[in-house]
Amino acid sequence: MTEHNQTLPHVADTAEARRRPGRPGRRPGSADTRGEILAAARKVFAEKGFDKATIRGIARAAGVDPALVHHYFETKDGVFVAAMRLPFDPAVVIPMIVNGPREEVGERLVRFILTMTGDPNAREHVLGLLRTAMVNEQGVAMVREFFSSAVLGRVGAELGVPQIRMQTAFSQMLGMVMARHIMRLEPLASAGTEELVELLAPTVQRYLTA
Amino acid sequence: MTEHNQTLPHVADTAEARRRPGRPGRRPGSADTRGEILAAARKVFAEKGFDKATIRGIARAAGVDPALVHHYFETKDGVFVAAMRLPFDPAVVIPMIVNGPREEVGERLVRFILTMTGDPNAREHVLGLLRTAMVNEQGVAMVREFFSSAVLGRVGAELGVPQIRMQTAFSQMLGMVMARHIMRLEPLASAGTEELVELLAPTVQRYLTA
Repeated sequence: MTEHNQTLPHVADTAEARRRPGRPGRRPGSADTRGEILAAARKVFAEKGFDKATIRGIARAAGVDPALVHHYFETKDGVFVAAMRLPFDPAVVIPMIVNGPREEVGERLVRFILTMTGDPNAREHVLGLLRTAMVNEQGVAMVREFFSSAVLGRVGAELGVPQIRMQTAFSQMLGMVMARHIMRLEPLASAGTEELVELLAPTVQRYLTA
Repeated sequence: MTEHNQTLPHVADTAEARRRPGRPGRRPGSADTRGEILAAARKVFAEKGFDKATIRGIARAAGVDPALVHHYFETKDGVFVAAMRLPFDPAVVIPMIVNGPREEVGERLVRFILTMTGDPNAREHVLGLLRTAMVNEQGVAMVREFFSSAVLGRVGAELGVPQIRMQTAFSQMLGMVMARHIMRLEPLASAGTEELVELLAPTVQRYLTA
């Protein structure tokens, strides 16, 4: 499974990583402050969900100035991605999926998700989020709102695809990740990326062709 | 959502239901005995998984004769279905999916799963099984082996479809059930059966056309 060892440059290139290295205009804030913001964010997202959480509310819960939250994470999405340790930043991934030949959008999306979840570290954080969504109501609301607002809503708007079709494409990839990495059905779990792209890309392409 | 009120005659018609009404040759065993067998079965399936569990082992754990387990539930599948309160019996559902025009097998399968999970009571037991599979290792093994051995393996053999394709079709339906009934993404969760059949049937049909 060599494809599991692929590096994921687009995944590492998050808003957070882009800001970190001593960027001009960096305001004060210890490593601890950053950690405190993320701890506060996890609490606020769990309580309010993704849609109702605000950078101001997270800053208030962390006892810092909202400007500091913006400084570290740029956007609410950025805070969520860092707080949940997600291996993808919608601000980076969405343009990557949306741009390029329209007749290959299904393949790009399938290949991105298979590559990301092929990396054991990245996968663990994605599975953690899915487990959260499975076992408690607060977790469900938070995960639903994040995917709806920050991922599926935006991709659908960019591509002009109705949400029901975006969500059906999401359901295929969600089920594939669960069948491979949680249920571990064989031979599916050990199948190579190319074989799965061949199976899944036409499905997703059809859903995204309204 | 009138389709949610459809009756499910094929679902009610389990091996267990077929045997219950005072069938000739019925051997002694109180209502309690039946309950004790099911409690023992849940324990044995959780510990050994589906494949390694046996009717003899379940009978031993319940302190009854194996013939009594056969009498109540006919097969190991029958014990599992009753123990997990599953709203479908593979012995009834598989022929229903497999028989009929081959070019409509995708539609039959999609329609069965949407109708079954459209019924709130039936759905709760299916979701319970999926949650079990999400949260603990024993649960995962049990659920994986049940679907592999008792469902996907058999349908694949009947249709001559490779397991990776059966499992990919399963992943689409698993993801759809989760996206609708656990994540409750809208408009997907409230969509009617016919709209979803139109979206999903061609996908499953393609997977099952090797």
